[in-house]
Amino acid sequence: MAGRFLMFQSFEIETEAGHASGRVAELRVAMACLSLDGFLVPHTDACQGIWISRQRLGWLTGFTGSTGIALILRNQAVIFVDGRYSLQIRQQTDSAVFSYENLVTTSPAAWLKQHTTGLKIGFDPWLHTISDARALREGLQANDGRLIAVKENLIDLIWKNQPEPPLHPVSIQSTELSGKTAKEKMDEIRRAITDAESKATILTDPSSIAWCFNIRGSDIAHTPLPLSCAIIPVQGKPALFIDKRKLKKNEKKYLQSLCTILQPSFFEENIIYLARNVKNILLDSTLIAEKLRLIIEKAGGQVREYRDPVQLLRAVKTPAELAGAHLAHQRDGVALVRFLSWLSRQNPDMQSEISTTQKLEELRLQTAEAFGSRLEDIAFDTISSSGPNSAIIHYRVNVQTNRSLKNGELYLVDSGAQYRDGTTDVTRTIAIGKVGDDAKRCFTLVLKGMIAISTAHFPLGTRGQDIDALARIALWKNGFDYAHSTGHGVGAFLAVHEGPQSISRYSTQILLPHMILSNEPGYYRKSSFGIRIENLLAVKIAAIPEGGELPMLSFETLTLCPIDKHLILPALLTKEERDWLNNYHDAVYKKTVSFLDPADQEWLIDATAPI
Amino acid sequence: MAGRFLMFQSFEIETEAGHASGRVAELRVAMACLSLDGFLVPHTDACQGIWISRQRLGWLTGFTGSTGIALILRNQAVIFVDGRYSLQIRQQTDSAVFSYENLVTTSPAAWLKQHTTGLKIGFDPWLHTISDARALREGLQANDGRLIAVKENLIDLIWKNQPEPPLHPVSIQSTELSGKTAKEKMDEIRRAITDAESKATILTDPSSIAWCFNIRGSDIAHTPLPLSCAIIPVQGKPALFIDKRKLKKNEKKYLQSLCTILQPSFFEENIIYLARNVKNILLDSTLIAEKLRLIIEKAGGQVREYRDPVQLLRAVKTPAELAGAHLAHQRDGVALVRFLSWLSRQNPDMQSEISTTQKLEELRLQTAEAFGSRLEDIAFDTISSSGPNSAIIHYRVNVQTNRSLKNGELYLVDSGAQYRDGTTDVTRTIAIGKVGDDAKRCFTLVLKGMIAISTAHFPLGTRGQDIDALARIALWKNGFDYAHSTGHGVGAFLAVHEGPQSISRYSTQILLPHMILSNEPGYYRKSSFGIRIENLLAVKIAAIPEGGELPMLSFETLTLCPIDKHLILPALLTKEERDWLNNYHDAVYKKTVSFLDPADQEWLIDATAPI
Repeated sequence: MAGRFLMFQSFEIETEAGHASGRVAELRVAMACLSLDGFLVPHTDACQGIWISRQRLGWLTGFTGSTGIALILRNQAVIFVDGRYSLQIRQQTDSAVFSYENLVTTSPAAWLKQHTTGLKIGFDPWLHTISDARALREGLQANDGRLIAVKENLIDLIWKNQPEPPLHPVSIQSTELSGKTAKEKMDEIRRAITDAESKATILTDPSSIAWCFNIRGSDIAHTPLPLSCAIIPVQGKPALFIDKRKLKKNEKKYLQSLCTILQPSFFEENIIYLARNVKNILLDSTLIAEKLRLIIEKAGGQVREYRDPVQLLRAVKTPAELAGAHLAHQRDGVALVRFLSWLSRQNPDMQSEISTTQKLEELRLQTAEAFGSRLEDIAFDTISSSGPNSAIIHYRVNVQTNRSLKNGELYLVDSGAQYRDGTTDVTRTIAIGKVGDDAKRCFTLVLKGMIAISTAHFPLGTRGQDIDALARIALWKNGFDYAHSTGHGVGAFLAVHEGPQSISRYSTQILLPHMILSNEPGYYRKSSFGIRIENLLAVKIAAIPEGGELPMLSFETLTLCPIDKHLILPALLTKEERDWLNNYHDAVYKKTVSFLDPADQEWLIDATAPI
Repeated sequence: MAGRFLMFQSFEIETEAGHASGRVAELRVAMACLSLDGFLVPHTDACQGIWISRQRLGWLTGFTGSTGIALILRNQAVIFVDGRYSLQIRQQTDSAVFSYENLVTTSPAAWLKQHTTGLKIGFDPWLHTISDARALREGLQANDGRLIAVKENLIDLIWKNQPEPPLHPVSIQSTELSGKTAKEKMDEIRRAITDAESKATILTDPSSIAWCFNIRGSDIAHTPLPLSCAIIPVQGKPALFIDKRKLKKNEKKYLQSLCTILQPSFFEENIIYLARNVKNILLDSTLIAEKLRLIIEKAGGQVREYRDPVQLLRAVKTPAELAGAHLAHQRDGVALVRFLSWLSRQNPDMQSEISTTQKLEELRLQTAEAFGSRLEDIAFDTISSSGPNSAIIHYRVNVQTNRSLKNGELYLVDSGAQYRDGTTDVTRTIAIGKVGDDAKRCFTLVLKGMIAISTAHFPLGTRGQDIDALARIALWKNGFDYAHSTGHGVGAFLAVHEGPQSISRYSTQILLPHMILSNEPGYYRKSSFGIRIENLLAVKIAAIPEGGELPMLSFETLTLCPIDKHLILPALLTKEERDWLNNYHDAVYKKTVSFLDPADQEWLIDATAPI
């Protein structure tokens, strides 16, 4: 059977800590040649997202996480990562070479201000946003230091045999699925640029470009995006900078009707031309590379710093995208039920984190086919973690860490799929055999938080940060918490993490009808067990309850997958919480049962029976 | 009996709308003399607080609320007030003279930017903060307008017979009550100034000055503060600018040991001297008058804009202040129980909003005396509102609006006391006779929110804005909300509203152990009824629950007063909520019963019996 399906993920160990010492030494030679006291190596590539084609930070340090930045000085090397990676960074990198800082509490800018005087620090202005570069410059200048933009990235000088930029074909996302033509989207973007009192904008986030031109690609693992950049003027034709080898005849013709297509090597000179002619260019300083600001200002243009004009438009899904999300989640739900039913029949000792991952992928692929659809990709590397591994929030199994399932332990699986009609992201935590009451109590507290978000109503104007505590209060009352956000925005056959919407204490974005967000509280006991329960939600306008006065917003749950009742202590739930769970399970049953084999149906009846 | 006690409040109508048209006409003459197109009349006096001795806005317009600003143009006059006053402003002022704007959604700066071009607008720089003046200046300059600081306030030019500034005697707040000597506080402030990389600060908030010198006064109604200003340098003696007629021998001697005492008329020249010598002066631009910035910069000094160095120190109470708060609340609780017990025995038709207010004040005065203490003042004008009047959030009864209590209606009373050992603020909503299920349902939803805050646990680092939704979610789920904050900071025998702590969607201040806050969700049905339930809380370090991992903060309830069980629908409460209520009532019973007459004891047994 295994031969029938394409594996979207590998479990090999991709980088090794052992190279770091030599590579850092070479980097220091390059620094010395340019009279630099230090050099910054962020995780980001030129497109500023978490999607990169050249993994410079990973190549230098061995770290495989999705955010981070290294600061290499003459006699010291510091890697900054957030709390999710505090364990992983120590496992993957050589602590004889590196020391570590928490990126959230101590930014590189703050660290440089606190620990250095008079240093000249080099950076590649293509890899840092305008606002990050500003913070770094100010941090250094406070103690007579200087931030120096290098002409060529120093890592590129020493990294031989870099991978070529990917050249995967571009496809068109139909209007049936996107719900809006590229022309309509372009008009909306132009209005947003005009509202911001500007004349043009530059897009470098491939997710924004894919959304606005209604195209998709596969240059980036698990995210259906073609690498590209674009210039969108209020007057005149947009310019799309994309390697033409990615465009087949039909796609080329489609794009030519919308914009001028140019090779990426022409990007810089076109920005100079734009800066000279249009003058006022809108850029989001938290998204756009410092390099673009430098080019524009050198050419006599002016940067108008403002919110990205695409993000918010993209976040509010069209009715067609929501309909697609429902279909994608039903299909994904059937695959998930088949997976959980299969898992319930396995001998745990015979299954591992890798074998379950493979099985889930196989079932997604088969189920999509049976529905006449297609699993385009998984949405991210599956987090398949058993026992103590599940306590590592961003665990990714490889051949070395792979662990078999064990009776009495928890198994946590966080996975997602990319279908043409929608992106899914779902986490379930499963009891393998009988587990102790302590884990059940923690699971039930996490579930209470997850239900609190699922059932929340809130007035228009409520921000993600306003409701975050609802997901945590049950845990807080018992002396627990989780060190990650409650939810992130999710794209429509786009990135599984998208802004500006999210549910966290820092999220100031107002929640608007038709945004899609995850709802994923958790709890992690170090070296013991981890719990996370995650559904995707769509914001909707709530019906005004009887006797109520104000229109409210609420959430509609998209994900369809049973929540393991073996882990619930019903006495800890209120009636409202029990009702939600039973109604949810009823919906899961009704929407998936007719697509299942008898054995899976039988399992589902039991898994979704009321408590 | 009535003769025995001093009334701290009057029910007369203090200002009249009828004067406005003539006064505005005179103001326009003054504007014309100075070639001004407009003039701003804020509610604030020179001390920037809500405490004012000269009610210029009230004198000009008739409005008696505690925030607002009028913009008088040649042919138009606009008053800006927040949502609390949208009804009241229309009742109190002449709509033939004024139009109205919502201060929160449309600031005068935004209004001027949107509606005017090329105007020269005058303002009194003593009455506007640095940041407000900046916003006004920018709003005007956007359309070629100008903001012009006048030498003398134009209202003062036309208002004859202004009240003299008050000259009430200053008293010393003992270290037993404050828990810290003025010298210790001065050292803390100096450290805060040094941490902010500055050399001196200026205090103009009388609440900050009273706190830091351990003095009290009564220049401001219901708030025990002497009007004064101070300069605090890191090196050298502080200077206190206060009318010496307020100082008796002992208080003068005490203050002379701490600072140089100067007449307020020397304030300006001392700031010039400071600016010339110390150069870098720390000012909170959201609290300090624009005039001070102008003086400092003209004298060659430099303003370092930063957070006020006193506010946060003052907000975190000392153990002595917390002990005082407990005593004050026990005493206040006994008075409240006596009041509610008395009320339960009255014929509603024979009692009015005014008579109940008088009775409550009488009982507070008597009870304090019986405890060997003293009611120094009430903490604010009592909100005593029956039936539809209770739907007006900031209702203040006067002889015209006074209404008798009525069977079948709600009665809402929001009141507070100033005792030497603490400030109280409490709201109860009472069923008069039998009331309908609709009001009971709303009351129970408000109570659920109030209990959610009372029982919350949260990690250190949690801000007021993070927990605000806990108080609202039960209302939101039923299509209701309330248009005010959930809670405000409360002083220790100081202002009943103090910052920086609060519970609202805008409150970014982290909640710290020993802060005191109110917890007062509500619900208001226009022209029908209003509900608010308010207790004061102190932030404390919570005991780690069994099995819990993280230290959490929680709240300790200070207020002791039964919550009307006639208004509760027990079926809507969870077990946890019922437990909280029963435990709370048990505490109220135990801490007040021994100070009551038999009749009140009997009422209390019933009022606090478990549900």
